[in-house]
Amino acid sequence: MSYRPTIAITMGEPAGIGPEVIVKALADPQLRQRAKYIIYGMNELLAYAADLVEFDVFWWRDQSSKQLRSYSQDVVVVDYDQYSILGSTIRAPSRLGGQASMRFCLDAIEAANRKIVDAVVTAPIAKESWKLAGYNYPGHTELFAERTDTRRYAMMFAGGPLKVVLATVHIPLNGLWGRLNIGAVFQPIELLHEALVNWFDIEKPRIAVCGLNPHASENGQFGDEEQRIITPAITMAREQGINVTGPYAPDTIFLAARDGKYDAVVAMYHDQGLIPVKLLAFDQAVNLTLGLPFVRTSPDHGTAFDLVGKNRANPGSMHSAIQMAVDLAIRRHQRSQTPTPPTD
Amino acid sequence: MSYRPTIAITMGEPAGIGPEVIVKALADPQLRQRAKYIIYGMNELLAYAADLVEFDVFWWRDQSSKQLRSYSQDVVVVDYDQYSILGSTIRAPSRLGGQASMRFCLDAIEAANRKIVDAVVTAPIAKESWKLAGYNYPGHTELFAERTDTRRYAMMFAGGPLKVVLATVHIPLNGLWGRLNIGAVFQPIELLHEALVNWFDIEKPRIAVCGLNPHASENGQFGDEEQRIITPAITMAREQGINVTGPYAPDTIFLAARDGKYDAVVAMYHDQGLIPVKLLAFDQAVNLTLGLPFVRTSPDHGTAFDLVGKNRANPGSMHSAIQMAVDLAIRRHQRSQTPTPPTD
Repeated sequence: MSYRPTIAITMGEPAGIGPEVIVKALADPQLRQRAKYIIYGMNELLAYAADLVEFDVFWWRDQSSKQLRSYSQDVVVVDYDQYSILGSTIRAPSRLGGQASMRFCLDAIEAANRKIVDAVVTAPIAKESWKLAGYNYPGHTELFAERTDTRRYAMMFAGGPLKVVLATVHIPLNGLWGRLNIGAVFQPIELLHEALVNWFDIEKPRIAVCGLNPHASENGQFGDEEQRIITPAITMAREQGINVTGPYAPDTIFLAARDGKYDAVVAMYHDQGLIPVKLLAFDQAVNLTLGLPFVRTSPDHGTAFDLVGKNRANPGSMHSAIQMAVDLAIRRHQRSQTPTPPTD
Repeated sequence: MSYRPTIAITMGEPAGIGPEVIVKALADPQLRQRAKYIIYGMNELLAYAADLVEFDVFWWRDQSSKQLRSYSQDVVVVDYDQYSILGSTIRAPSRLGGQASMRFCLDAIEAANRKIVDAVVTAPIAKESWKLAGYNYPGHTELFAERTDTRRYAMMFAGGPLKVVLATVHIPLNGLWGRLNIGAVFQPIELLHEALVNWFDIEKPRIAVCGLNPHASENGQFGDEEQRIITPAITMAREQGINVTGPYAPDTIFLAARDGKYDAVVAMYHDQGLIPVKLLAFDQAVNLTLGLPFVRTSPDHGTAFDLVGKNRANPGSMHSAIQMAVDLAIRRHQRSQTPTPPTD
């Protein structure tokens, strides 16, 4: 029997759809067979979600404490019942929601750093709640990077036939010019290559890089970033033996990737990468942080306050995120057990 | 029997795949039944293409002259045999290619202005050839606008379930800030609304407008163009009675449009609109110029020099472009025959 990893799941924003999609996704017996789970969250809300969707409670509850621990049970909810968000704060950001969702994350990161868990899956947080609680992170990714001393990291989205890594993320389009430099393009290429080899078991990954401008500027006719920034970054990566090509016209390269001509694509900005991912894999795409010392995935949707309490939240993306975390955790374990073959 | 329009087809860059996709598309007897065609091009290359794809020549040839005329025959090639591009210039841009493809366009525009033809379909030109011949138009659209005294025009792409109009087109992404103003967003909304009502017979079109920034900036968190530019343009259009909403997150709005929640989408820049169109309708998308006094469509691909002479060019997009030109020409004719109903 293959390795059975332990996966941490953070419940995310208490007033959002996190509890519902976690309960719905983990109701799948196949997921529960392949791994054990520790949910860092609030038992009250998870039980409410189970009631809403008419599932029996399938977990064991443990009171949260300063001492993180491992468990023998299949599914455990570590319960932070010091937080309680009922009444007015339901379906809206709040300071308490920010404090709670931050605490879930910090404990899950510590559990992963201490190898109590093999991977972390994060349900969506509300940035607004974090702000109200005094935390100014753009998102999970930056928090996880900081708490694991990770300097080189990148955001990948995997869904349907596509794997896409972003060179820049949540910045105004007009802020690209201060961010997009050779290093900002080279680094995601390198991280992507490492992930495809080490996490996805692709021996010689083929990576495509998007241009920035229409038609990748047609040799400088509409912009020079391809020549000044993107091509030099590709050249640097090729000199390291990475099979990467481009820059390609952004409006056709995703078709080639969809059709299997490339294993993954590096996009220059958020929507360049996310428009194709969401079109081809809505409700199934997974966000994966590259560069961390452990696997971290999340669904690609937000807190969806408008759907809370209606049994209408689609757990597809959360299910995919958990499944990918399990797959990658098993693969990493197997790799760590296999003696490295001699290189020639 | 419904009106049988006459469609002009310009052969485009002589050294490109224009001749091949025209011959392949017009080989469809259904297209030839619904309309008559005048191809402004070079008989030698069209005959070569017919030979390559093993079709019999199905057209009547007329020598080009200064005097444009109409014909009784179903398919006529107006032959500009003063141009001849054989040998070295095949599969590459050239001055002669630029002179020829410009001449085809100018004559087709004049034929449309004089109502000899109902619509114009343009095969791809090579901008490089136009430049070599001394013509500095970014593309067909600007040439057609100039030669028809059209000040308000916009580029639409229609393919599969999507209709998308671009607020900006072939400019560097870094050039957006000089171009994107309230008028630049309002005008395509207005032109799109008119086209959906008058050309596509949609009585009360529902138009969605994209934001510019990730997540449409989440209320100004990543950029202010939504608040400064896009929302005011939408408000202006709504005040004119247009059913338009937004700005929407660019990475999810195309899903909603695909699923039929909107009739069309206004995109802020080239790749924002073209990535989804090409993903959902590659080899079938049609480029349509809004605002001209006549219908003008074209396939959404380029000259594809690398495919010339191999019988590998896909005529799908050219076929769709001709079909749409025929459909719209018939609808416009019907509209011109129908007395306008009284408005209340």
